[in-house]
Amino acid sequence: MDLFDAIRERRSCRNFSDQPIEQEDLDRILEAGLWAPSPLNAQPWGFIVIKSAEMKSRLLAEANRCRQWAVEASGWKWLASYRADFLEQAPVIIAVVGDPKKSGVDMFQDDGPVGYQHACAAATQNMLLAAHALGLGSVWFTFFDKGEIRTILDIPAEKVPLALICLGKPAGEVKPVPRKGLEKMVTYL
Amino acid sequence: MDLFDAIRERRSCRNFSDQPIEQEDLDRILEAGLWAPSPLNAQPWGFIVIKSAEMKSRLLAEANRCRQWAVEASGWKWLASYRADFLEQAPVIIAVVGDPKKSGVDMFQDDGPVGYQHACAAATQNMLLAAHALGLGSVWFTFFDKGEIRTILDIPAEKVPLALICLGKPAGEVKPVPRKGLEKMVTYL
Repeated sequence: MDLFDAIRERRSCRNFSDQPIEQEDLDRILEAGLWAPSPLNAQPWGFIVIKSAEMKSRLLAEANRCRQWAVEASGWKWLASYRADFLEQAPVIIAVVGDPKKSGVDMFQDDGPVGYQHACAAATQNMLLAAHALGLGSVWFTFFDKGEIRTILDIPAEKVPLALICLGKPAGEVKPVPRKGLEKMVTYL
Repeated sequence: MDLFDAIRERRSCRNFSDQPIEQEDLDRILEAGLWAPSPLNAQPWGFIVIKSAEMKSRLLAEANRCRQWAVEASGWKWLASYRADFLEQAPVIIAVVGDPKKSGVDMFQDDGPVGYQHACAAATQNMLLAAHALGLGSVWFTFFDKGEIRTILDIPAEKVPLALICLGKPAGEVKPVPRKGLEKMVTYL
């Protein structure tokens, strides 16, 4: 699939069919993640592939717990009806886990390491694009407590769970999401 | 260009020819950035296009200042010979600027907003891939002090400069950078 088409067409999908994902497709998606750039080419990521129904239920329970908390913290009423059922529906979830010790020179800066997170986000974007090119829908889900996700997925304390990528064949139409135009977002110096 | 080819082939380029970039190509690259996903589709980015030689010199001076400091802070001797001349050479630099007020629900979490940074990283990755598909080389440069970059580029204090993307026709060969294989990076649950 053409790169520019994939970039323009890829959308967040919230309803998945229960059709499984071929291992070959999953490998191509994961490999796309590996080719992301990273500070000093440190490749600060690990990918955990989750297919277990029990794990997915626990991830959904954590998302719901977090939402409940956030409704109060944010005052955003619409959030109360937000459903993350795609965490249970998706045949495969890839957890993207970052390693702060594999960041760039920013390890020595005041803000602390963030380059490793940016690299993991680039890897995530590669995987979303790859999934779309293979006819799969995806959600980039980040609304969870890192400590809880560490417990559920048995991630050591020194690593950071950054995203859950839900993958599957879309069930029904995936709504397009508009973007603001270049004239609103670009400044020339 | 095929998506998977672009993902696999795109490399960091450190030497640019002085051939200018067509506005049409630049627009396609910037538009690719706009299509990145973001929390609540908040589109928390702004792109500053820098062509002025004076600005580029100031960015290079800041990179060199930062490197000098980092050589001491890190104890990494190789860093002393690292040259960021591509900041002056590249015909175009795109500064990616994030807006922490356009993050997701993570605004209310203890770690503070980071989703907006991840979205900006996804936009950056889209632009790097788009540049490659158009025959352009690119560097994702992040080694600077945010305060200094705000001063040079006149960015308000509430916005965060996250990356400088240097773009141009590669001068000479761009060396491939290997990646670790799936077996090292993927765990199945």
